[in-house]
Amino acid sequence: MSAPLGRLWLVPNTLDLGTDSETALDQVLPRAVIARAAGLSHWVAENAKTTRAFLKRVDQVCPLALPLQAIDIVELPRPRKGVGTASAGAPDLQPLLAPAMSGHDIGLLSEAGLPAVADPGAGLVQSAHALGIAVEPLSGPSSLLLALAASGLNGQSFAFVGYLPVEATARAARIRELEALSRRFGQTQIAIETPYRNGALLAALAEHLQPQTRLAVACGLTLPGGWCRTLPARQWREQTATLPDRMPAVFSFLAG
Amino acid sequence: MSAPLGRLWLVPNTLDLGTDSETALDQVLPRAVIARAAGLSHWVAENAKTTRAFLKRVDQVCPLALPLQAIDIVELPRPRKGVGTASAGAPDLQPLLAPAMSGHDIGLLSEAGLPAVADPGAGLVQSAHALGIAVEPLSGPSSLLLALAASGLNGQSFAFVGYLPVEATARAARIRELEALSRRFGQTQIAIETPYRNGALLAALAEHLQPQTRLAVACGLTLPGGWCRTLPARQWREQTATLPDRMPAVFSFLAG
Repeated sequence: MSAPLGRLWLVPNTLDLGTDSETALDQVLPRAVIARAAGLSHWVAENAKTTRAFLKRVDQVCPLALPLQAIDIVELPRPRKGVGTASAGAPDLQPLLAPAMSGHDIGLLSEAGLPAVADPGAGLVQSAHALGIAVEPLSGPSSLLLALAASGLNGQSFAFVGYLPVEATARAARIRELEALSRRFGQTQIAIETPYRNGALLAALAEHLQPQTRLAVACGLTLPGGWCRTLPARQWREQTATLPDRMPAVFSFLAG
Repeated sequence: MSAPLGRLWLVPNTLDLGTDSETALDQVLPRAVIARAAGLSHWVAENAKTTRAFLKRVDQVCPLALPLQAIDIVELPRPRKGVGTASAGAPDLQPLLAPAMSGHDIGLLSEAGLPAVADPGAGLVQSAHALGIAVEPLSGPSSLLLALAASGLNGQSFAFVGYLPVEATARAARIRELEALSRRFGQTQIAIETPYRNGALLAALAEHLQPQTRLAVACGLTLPGGWCRTLPARQWREQTATLPDRMPAVFSFLAG
């Protein structure tokens, strides 16, 4: 008789990776989620080292069920950010789910926020569905949705579009294309950027959006010193806003 | 000398309203968020009665700073769900922020999940930005993002489109339009429905989507008995899935 299958728990992470801050887990994760993470013996993650660091923080709130060295951590293959993982050419991730097939629960951890949103975890979730493994998402911070809520822009219709092109001409064209979609559908457009390029993206948005389009910047949400501000693009243009190099930011806009 | 302005805290709620379950706050809200809610003396919310019920649950984890009767709760004007609140014709919500102008922090609470996402709170956030009141979003559950994470569909590009038309012909046309956008942009489309119509929406999606389009249903996430499943539309069509009348559900799909 075979054992019942394990479950795949989608465990949210803090939003402080790569910043100079460390968020207390109790600021952003529910106590029951921390306890669930403390009990898992098998993990799949983008990065084993940051996963061990996360588990050390978990241990300070809820003692781990196993010593850290005894916990199994397997890294996901890493596609470039911004490239879909759900395409037909994606690697077969079913082998990573072998522990669940023999009855062990597995945690999937992202580098920041909810796994499988704006990161390479979706392929693993897809494999879990294909194998009949139950998928259990756990409540935690999503920088995209916190930024949207804080923007005051339309939260009834919105699109997350990932990264914009880095090259200036292509980026300007993409900004105008997204603004046209925003106007046509009344849809808030949400984008992200690698932190050291945040200032360049803000300058490009301020330059290429229509003056009255409302542009929201959310910088370091849930972190000390985090802030968000929504202004018409023309007002962003008039000020020389500087964004910190090491803080994650989310950019949202809605055409007027 | 005028007092410093108060802040507008965006306080997430549980996802159990209108269901037969009651989620322990520690399952979905961080301890620091519960403590923040316990300390607020002024609230703006969709519904004063459910806000008092929420505060009673908060009090069981962190004692309220003031007796419940002494806490000021003001209701938002209620636009119909699915209609944007950020339009030029929206009511002036700045009077609701008077306590913050005289130095008191205010909590904004939704009926479920993050305020100002898929609910009428965005107008208040917009007014806060206009008045220079700092907006502070707090980590909590978002049924939309939990459903997206659990779907295994594309989390690098997605759109939330709110409610679909109820009338059958218009709904079928809208489903085909959204599927065309999903195919063109590789974009996961996310929709919601009033719970008693969930079964009808699932049947319409299964009927009108292309057979190979992957359709994810997330029902009652974070609740006991909650589940999510992702299958090609043709497989949803072959089975007679029934959805409970009183459980919130989120529908996502991605064209193949």
